[in-house]
Amino acid sequence: MEHRKSPNAPGKVSAEKVDIGALQEKLAVAVGAEHVVPASADLSPHLEDERGLYVGRAPFIVFPGTAEEVAETVRLCAEAGAAMVPQGGNTSLVGASIPMHGEVLIGLKRLNRVRALDPANFTITVEAGVILQDLQRAAEEADRLFPLSLGAEGSCMIGGNLSTNAGGVQVLRYGNTRDLVLGIEAVLPDGRIWNGLRGLRKDNTGYDLKQLFIGGEGTLGIITAAVLKLFPRPREVVTAFAAVTSVAAAVELLGRIRTASGDAVCSFELIPRRGLAFALEHVSGVRDPLAAPHDWYVLIELHGGQAEGGLSGSLEAALAEAYEAGLVADAALAANAGQAGDFWRIREAIVEAQKKEGGSIKHDVSVPVSRIPEFIERGSALVAEMVPGIRPVPFGHLGDGNIHFNLSQPEGAEREAFLARWDEVNHAVHDLVAELGGSISAEHGIGQLKIAENARFKPPVELEMMRAVKKALDPQGLMNPGKLLG
Amino acid sequence: MEHRKSPNAPGKVSAEKVDIGALQEKLAVAVGAEHVVPASADLSPHLEDERGLYVGRAPFIVFPGTAEEVAETVRLCAEAGAAMVPQGGNTSLVGASIPMHGEVLIGLKRLNRVRALDPANFTITVEAGVILQDLQRAAEEADRLFPLSLGAEGSCMIGGNLSTNAGGVQVLRYGNTRDLVLGIEAVLPDGRIWNGLRGLRKDNTGYDLKQLFIGGEGTLGIITAAVLKLFPRPREVVTAFAAVTSVAAAVELLGRIRTASGDAVCSFELIPRRGLAFALEHVSGVRDPLAAPHDWYVLIELHGGQAEGGLSGSLEAALAEAYEAGLVADAALAANAGQAGDFWRIREAIVEAQKKEGGSIKHDVSVPVSRIPEFIERGSALVAEMVPGIRPVPFGHLGDGNIHFNLSQPEGAEREAFLARWDEVNHAVHDLVAELGGSISAEHGIGQLKIAENARFKPPVELEMMRAVKKALDPQGLMNPGKLLG
Repeated sequence: MEHRKSPNAPGKVSAEKVDIGALQEKLAVAVGAEHVVPASADLSPHLEDERGLYVGRAPFIVFPGTAEEVAETVRLCAEAGAAMVPQGGNTSLVGASIPMHGEVLIGLKRLNRVRALDPANFTITVEAGVILQDLQRAAEEADRLFPLSLGAEGSCMIGGNLSTNAGGVQVLRYGNTRDLVLGIEAVLPDGRIWNGLRGLRKDNTGYDLKQLFIGGEGTLGIITAAVLKLFPRPREVVTAFAAVTSVAAAVELLGRIRTASGDAVCSFELIPRRGLAFALEHVSGVRDPLAAPHDWYVLIELHGGQAEGGLSGSLEAALAEAYEAGLVADAALAANAGQAGDFWRIREAIVEAQKKEGGSIKHDVSVPVSRIPEFIERGSALVAEMVPGIRPVPFGHLGDGNIHFNLSQPEGAEREAFLARWDEVNHAVHDLVAELGGSISAEHGIGQLKIAENARFKPPVELEMMRAVKKALDPQGLMNPGKLLG
Repeated sequence: MEHRKSPNAPGKVSAEKVDIGALQEKLAVAVGAEHVVPASADLSPHLEDERGLYVGRAPFIVFPGTAEEVAETVRLCAEAGAAMVPQGGNTSLVGASIPMHGEVLIGLKRLNRVRALDPANFTITVEAGVILQDLQRAAEEADRLFPLSLGAEGSCMIGGNLSTNAGGVQVLRYGNTRDLVLGIEAVLPDGRIWNGLRGLRKDNTGYDLKQLFIGGEGTLGIITAAVLKLFPRPREVVTAFAAVTSVAAAVELLGRIRTASGDAVCSFELIPRRGLAFALEHVSGVRDPLAAPHDWYVLIELHGGQAEGGLSGSLEAALAEAYEAGLVADAALAANAGQAGDFWRIREAIVEAQKKEGGSIKHDVSVPVSRIPEFIERGSALVAEMVPGIRPVPFGHLGDGNIHFNLSQPEGAEREAFLARWDEVNHAVHDLVAELGGSISAEHGIGQLKIAENARFKPPVELEMMRAVKKALDPQGLMNPGKLLG
């Protein structure tokens, strides 16, 4: 647990003002009694969030099995005036899927079918409850790639990914979740089904309404299915681990490699020495790929179409040129998949290793790629002034401008005292992010956690438009109240 | 002129119910009298559309010079209750930028500045009135690519491209206009400026409102500027002209080449023999790149990162394999930029050549790529039954599922009699498109031309949501009335 939060004021009625017993009975008829799980059972996996920030409550959880059952569930709740929270794998990092005010919890896990896969159209049609990893596998079996990839992929569900507009480690080449969506099916707050399941790359016939639901955090309706883009399964995957002479050198290197590879760069992840050192110390199996220590590293991955094709040579040549130009101090190309896995293990071990170093205050922020060097330099100085001895571990998706600016407590400091400064430190870092034209939530969303911070930075006219859209599509305010907009 | 249309009912008040003289005076003060051009001048380039379908009327045209002046213009119009039509290069193919009911016409051409170019962030910030070709050039001078490319690029303006979500010939690799946008600045219907000019690749802090304005055809406000994605300028451009043994073979070939090239395919354009024959006959400088005639061709273009890199070889090998597999009958790779230009000239000559063959009834439709063979086969049979002797020339963006299903009149038929069947033929073709899960407007939008057709196919729940959004953001209904929604 990082530090527990209190709930935001609900946007609207909670379910407790309605006749919950009667609603529960109707839902049992609609979806089957065995799919309405009462609060007397252990609902904790559904009522507590992954980071231990929130504990919610719900009168019961209903698990509809089809889009039609979701529609009937929503219709009955709306009719009863009961607020609803949709939930997929419950892996939100901002408390987006926790019912805080006794809302009806609607679990999507039974909607787990791959409805169609069209290799020639490079599309797959899936239901909201399909686990991301299963989706990746289904694509792979058809010799296609579904590129969305992130830490929680073994348990998160695509419906949640869509509602969060999830990012991950291959955004640079393939885009965020939003960019992977061609069509959606959604249940609106009054229980009607909108069938927007088009599998088209070009369709200019009106407002692109699906974009509101993507990243809408379930506040406008419940996504029940989607048509998603697939890509060729890459025949060549080239992975390198390079020491760069500065963060600015990393940015310059990114532009060079994007150009030299024909924009084949999937991942370009920044790793600071401290992150590697933590991983070496705390996580077994992690080794330093380079002979000497360096302040900054990048993990680079490229996708190409020819096994043993030209990409490996292109990358090697670009790295050699960058070495000559003083941008790169040393580099290793993975000779095989095993070595590539070792490089990725460093990247993935950082979060785990950082836990062993005591408390850490986290930020999921983005700035324009060109401002990353300034952000890291000024951000590190800023927090060091606030908390002498603080140990910043800025790492992550440099290629997307998305640095996880995570700060470990000073050595020997008291964990709780350090974590008590979470909001204060967030506040200062977010001010800097805003000054640099950045975002206080790059890929995790707003949920409950960042509502107040978001309100500090969003232009008032934008917040007003958001509220107008919410009111237009959910006039009763029943969908996931208290999230995103507060 | 194809055949002139009558205006749709306006969504709301026309400017004629307001005190236009007083408004004109106020606007003259706001933007300078020389930038308010009265109806007594020749406004015809602004009041008639490119295809000659519409002739509109406006009391005057106002040309604000900055976003602030656009805001003041809109504020004054809204205050007076005057409806407005924004206009860029006036190249809409669906009458989206013609004022049909005496609305105030707001011309954006003076907003023609490149505000910023950030090569390290791969972004450019431009105003709405920048001509697409100038934007492409600005990117090129910074060793970057702005990939949006279409027929009207010499005169269309990026604001119009954004409002239309324009497509073009490189969508397969780089996406539609929507996919190229990171942030926008827009003037809302009440005259407030929304500054959403973020240059971030990841930003999950609320509903992605810019998506409503992109492709919104100016019905929700006026886009005044945008932050757009740039890409590495390709070092290798490989162009091929291949005869395929069928349309189905073309679809299969697309998948193979996407895979073999590491998804480097920018363009994959279908050309029927009849299109090539028309071009050979009517357009000077067009030559058949292949020795013998074939029924179907594809024009293929790939972008790579290394001059004389591996892509050319990859494509050649993939074409050879496809020849062995019976998909390709013959093919020519362009040996240099001149030859590549010759191949493209065929593609571009089709529209011009088709004009010389008499009247043609046009469709800008899309279907899933996998359904293209069925669409062309059934569509051709369908129209042949309606108009014996009709000569279909289905060509265009096969890679995006977007076929321009254009139909030349029977040889020797009477042009006007043929064109009189426009709506009837559209109707039947659109029914087929809908049956195949397609779109009746792939890249040109709805404007005025397709409102009735769109209403036949859009799910009612979707149209209702569109109207709710329109009402939420433009409660007075003053922005581009009678367009998109009717």
